[in-house]
Amino acid sequence: MRIAVFAGDGIGPEVTREAVRVLKALDLPGLDLVEGDVGGMAWRKHGHPLPQATLDIAHSADAILFGAVGDFSCDHLERHLRPEQAVLGLRKELGLFANLRPARVFAGLEGHSALRPEVAGAIDLLIVRELNGDVYFGEKGIETLPDGGRRGWDMMSYTDAEVRRIAHVGFKAAQGRNGKLCSVDKANVLETSQVWRDTVIEVSAQYPDVELTHMYVDNAAMQLVKNPGAFDVIVTGNLFGDILSDQASMCVGSIGLLASASMAEGTKGLYEPIHGSAPDIAGQDKANPMATILSVAMLLRHSFGREAEAQRIEAAVAQALADGVFGGDLGGTFGTAAIGDAVLERL
Amino acid sequence: MRIAVFAGDGIGPEVTREAVRVLKALDLPGLDLVEGDVGGMAWRKHGHPLPQATLDIAHSADAILFGAVGDFSCDHLERHLRPEQAVLGLRKELGLFANLRPARVFAGLEGHSALRPEVAGAIDLLIVRELNGDVYFGEKGIETLPDGGRRGWDMMSYTDAEVRRIAHVGFKAAQGRNGKLCSVDKANVLETSQVWRDTVIEVSAQYPDVELTHMYVDNAAMQLVKNPGAFDVIVTGNLFGDILSDQASMCVGSIGLLASASMAEGTKGLYEPIHGSAPDIAGQDKANPMATILSVAMLLRHSFGREAEAQRIEAAVAQALADGVFGGDLGGTFGTAAIGDAVLERL
Ligand SMILES: CC(C)[C@H](C(=O)O)[C@@H](O)C(=O)O
Ligand SMILES: CC(C)[C@H](C(=O)O)[C@@H](O)C(=O)O
Repeated sequence: MRIAVFAGDGIGPEVTREAVRVLKALDLPGLDLVEGDVGGMAWRKHGHPLPQATLDIAHSADAILFGAVGDFSCDHLERHLRPEQAVLGLRKELGLFANLRPARVFAGLEGHSALRPEVAGAIDLLIVRELNGDVYFGEKGIETLPDGGRRGWDMMSYTDAEVRRIAHVGFKAAQGRNGKLCSVDKANVLETSQVWRDTVIEVSAQYPDVELTHMYVDNAAMQLVKNPGAFDVIVTGNLFGDILSDQASMCVGSIGLLASASMAEGTKGLYEPIHGSAPDIAGQDKANPMATILSVAMLLRHSFGREAEAQRIEAAVAQALADGVFGGDLGGTFGTAAIGDAVLERL
Repeated sequence: MRIAVFAGDGIGPEVTREAVRVLKALDLPGLDLVEGDVGGMAWRKHGHPLPQATLDIAHSADAILFGAVGDFSCDHLERHLRPEQAVLGLRKELGLFANLRPARVFAGLEGHSALRPEVAGAIDLLIVRELNGDVYFGEKGIETLPDGGRRGWDMMSYTDAEVRRIAHVGFKAAQGRNGKLCSVDKANVLETSQVWRDTVIEVSAQYPDVELTHMYVDNAAMQLVKNPGAFDVIVTGNLFGDILSDQASMCVGSIGLLASASMAEGTKGLYEPIHGSAPDIAGQDKANPMATILSVAMLLRHSFGREAEAQRIEAAVAQALADGVFGGDLGGTFGTAAIGDAVLERL
């Protein structure tokens, strides 16, 4: 059970510390943790946000626990040296093509959403976002025009093979949930989406038990406000998934509680809280580590098939919340370490 | 005052009818209305969603009042014959590059949003969306791969000239409102966005009175849920604007009340409700014509400088709402024609 721990920048180290305490408390046989540098701190130490040594650790590990990256002091750097490149680089190098982002409101927290409690309380959805293609990884550049002006360009594309791979993840996820899959695209404008839609329809023949619908991305953004409870699983491309998964997270009202998994073919995966590095509160024992702790639960479930331990962690977090263990993000007074203690006590 | 009236499909004709009644009731000198066919109905009559005759009318007019297009019976058609092509074609042929979408909750309607009333009630924002570039109008295609697979592709791009043009619209709009402009991009991933951001910053030097901020599109989607009241004017590209403006509209809670303008250089513009053709309720006197009536107000303001008449219409609609004139979209019983009557009475 070799697990790479990349804590990163800002609040990354402190939330990861609590998550690792929870992981260790489970006394799993053969647990082998290896730390690595990523993001702005890696750039400062090694001149690159994703040093080769880190990549080697990532390749050798069965799973990666990731904190957060992002650092104002890197804003002036060229794009390929910025902290986000660690995220994009790991996704590409490890073939992490399937991002799983569950969004669900913990019982009793319906009031923390900007949505009305009855709307927020009904949310229980999973966004399956493709993570290795689309306009993220296409050719791109900035060219100087004959008149001296500039033109920035990025190629958006999907092959049917890329779509097929993520579509299977979406259909299988729907089979394990409520049997509904909504594929989101912009097929009325984009040829990329036309291939996306045709392929999802083709794959659907293998999943007669899943009810497939299609929605344009603008409509999906509306329905996620109006009636997010109507969604079960959403499958979509890299760019639309970036936007919709963040929108859905905020509907839940407490992004300090949301975990995510980025899976390669097989069981290898990277697990991280969906919140960022929050440099403004870094090092002040103010961050809520629950999202990272819940990422450990996803890690145990998806990379090691340890459903029982995953549920133990999730139950401990739910119990802590039910007992009023609220961090600053939920208007409470519990600090990072105290929340870690509270979850450990309930494990 | 030559105004083209393109009613289109579904509920388009009935909502446009009421809007035209309101327009005529103002007794404006030299009013000249010319009707034209667009969308699925134009395809059925002429074999094309945007026939040349319609385009000629559009070119000759000072402004266009547009209903809605979209029709299930066209779903099987090739992309270039589908109803949406009328919208895209008019935008491109007329150079309608600036889409203005105000989102504001009418007093007393805070409870109709899925957002909590205090969150929804604070919304008063304007989205300025670029409408002539981006991945919408770039080269695109579907190619067959050596292995027999398919690849769909669409080129995303912006030149600095395109960005400059829409940035000025955004800054000027902010000057006329609360002096805050938020530019939304994905500059951490896209070169298109890098040119966007650099150019917006360059243009900002000419507007020292406007406070400029930048936000990544995923974060913008979150903030529009969490605290939409914090936005004044948002300026963004075609694709991100499509998604965010629909999200913002739904935050308001009653898309039957939202109008939009799509402006060319100068005063020529196309005005339309943001809702679609709603074929399921077409022809049943169930549609709310208020969004189209409010589009007439925008038309008078932006194409003809008739601020007084624009305000008369807006006040009449607000009064009707205050008096409980609710269509089915707001849980009321007023039909399309009755709502038109109610607004006319209060004009
Ligand atoms: C940091 C950024 C490149 C990244 C993305 O856009 O994918 C982030 O927003 C995410 O969703 O993980
Ligand atoms: C119909 C469609 C092509 C169009 C768009 O994506 O621009 C619509 O969603 C809109 O926002 O006006």
